[in-house]
Amino acid sequence: MHLACLDVEGVLVPEIWQNVALRTGVEELQLTTRDVPDYHELMQRRLGILDEHGITLADIQAAIATMEPLPGAAAFIDRLRQTMPFILLSDTFEEFAAPLMKQLGYPTLFCNSLGVAPDGRITTYRLRQENGKFHAVTALHSIGYTVYAAGDSYNDLAMIREADRGAFFTPPPSIVKENPDLPVCSDYAELYAFLTA
Amino acid sequence: MHLACLDVEGVLVPEIWQNVALRTGVEELQLTTRDVPDYHELMQRRLGILDEHGITLADIQAAIATMEPLPGAAAFIDRLRQTMPFILLSDTFEEFAAPLMKQLGYPTLFCNSLGVAPDGRITTYRLRQENGKFHAVTALHSIGYTVYAAGDSYNDLAMIREADRGAFFTPPPSIVKENPDLPVCSDYAELYAFLTA
Repeated sequence: MHLACLDVEGVLVPEIWQNVALRTGVEELQLTTRDVPDYHELMQRRLGILDEHGITLADIQAAIATMEPLPGAAAFIDRLRQTMPFILLSDTFEEFAAPLMKQLGYPTLFCNSLGVAPDGRITTYRLRQENGKFHAVTALHSIGYTVYAAGDSYNDLAMIREADRGAFFTPPPSIVKENPDLPVCSDYAELYAFLTA
Repeated sequence: MHLACLDVEGVLVPEIWQNVALRTGVEELQLTTRDVPDYHELMQRRLGILDEHGITLADIQAAIATMEPLPGAAAFIDRLRQTMPFILLSDTFEEFAAPLMKQLGYPTLFCNSLGVAPDGRITTYRLRQENGKFHAVTALHSIGYTVYAAGDSYNDLAMIREADRGAFFTPPPSIVKENPDLPVCSDYAELYAFLTA
């Protein structure tokens, strides 16, 4: 039996932190792992920036609520859910993802979560586990599923390689050059064909 | 982070084989594990009965398509999907479940599958693994989830006991008597309260 694992940001919805930066006007939130390679250091920086600007979870959720899934993503998900089971695997936080998942019809999402103070400040973040996308594929293998996976970036590589068949979806050229053996899907029609072949 | 695992037949939809028996008029399909305790023997009997009566997968799907989720189940699922991730765990087959999952908005379902001949006859069944509900909870634990589970019958016991918190949903009196330590939810309001407490 087959099951698909899909990355979320860059595959189904735009990059969340970049949109939060744009919509809150706090440019420093544009920081990514390209600027601060260590994820935990990056997250501490982000939480510090939010604090400095007095930005609460509710402010961020309001910004995210004005976002939309990528064009065609909702139709793709509607088609896929009629064909095969799938799980969305993301490094984002469930509190951020909720407004976007609503627009996708609440698919099942495995991700991380935030710690929030009574006044709405984000105080901590909780990774469900390190290398969560990889381990999710392993766990699905352990219960008898053949797993197909797709994602767009470096944090998807372990998932894509652990899957029985994996592909990139609209990736940056650099990652394609470094992984010439992996197939590339350029749009949702190609991704659907890849997952259901 | 929390995730719910829910049984399907008896919790969200009526018993499928019993309805197939009713709707195809083939009474022998009423057989359950109460009549034939060994599951594999029971399934061989069922496949034999289907063959004798020339009943194809399409016939069964047409029968199942006239079924509806239990009263209140769709509203319960709509409410739950806005609150927490959940996975449906069932011993049924994805080919049988599809028409009912459509009516529930295509929640993620981990179940089994059928082997079907070109002429539509069901030739085999494939269990994803033995004791699949139990192992699904174990796999979700392995990726950092706290698991709440609910089901109505004996094939749910291992799942309910392996979960961090488990309950019965509208179970038969016998199983409650034999498991007096497990909580019982009598309707969807109680089940929702149990899962989100």
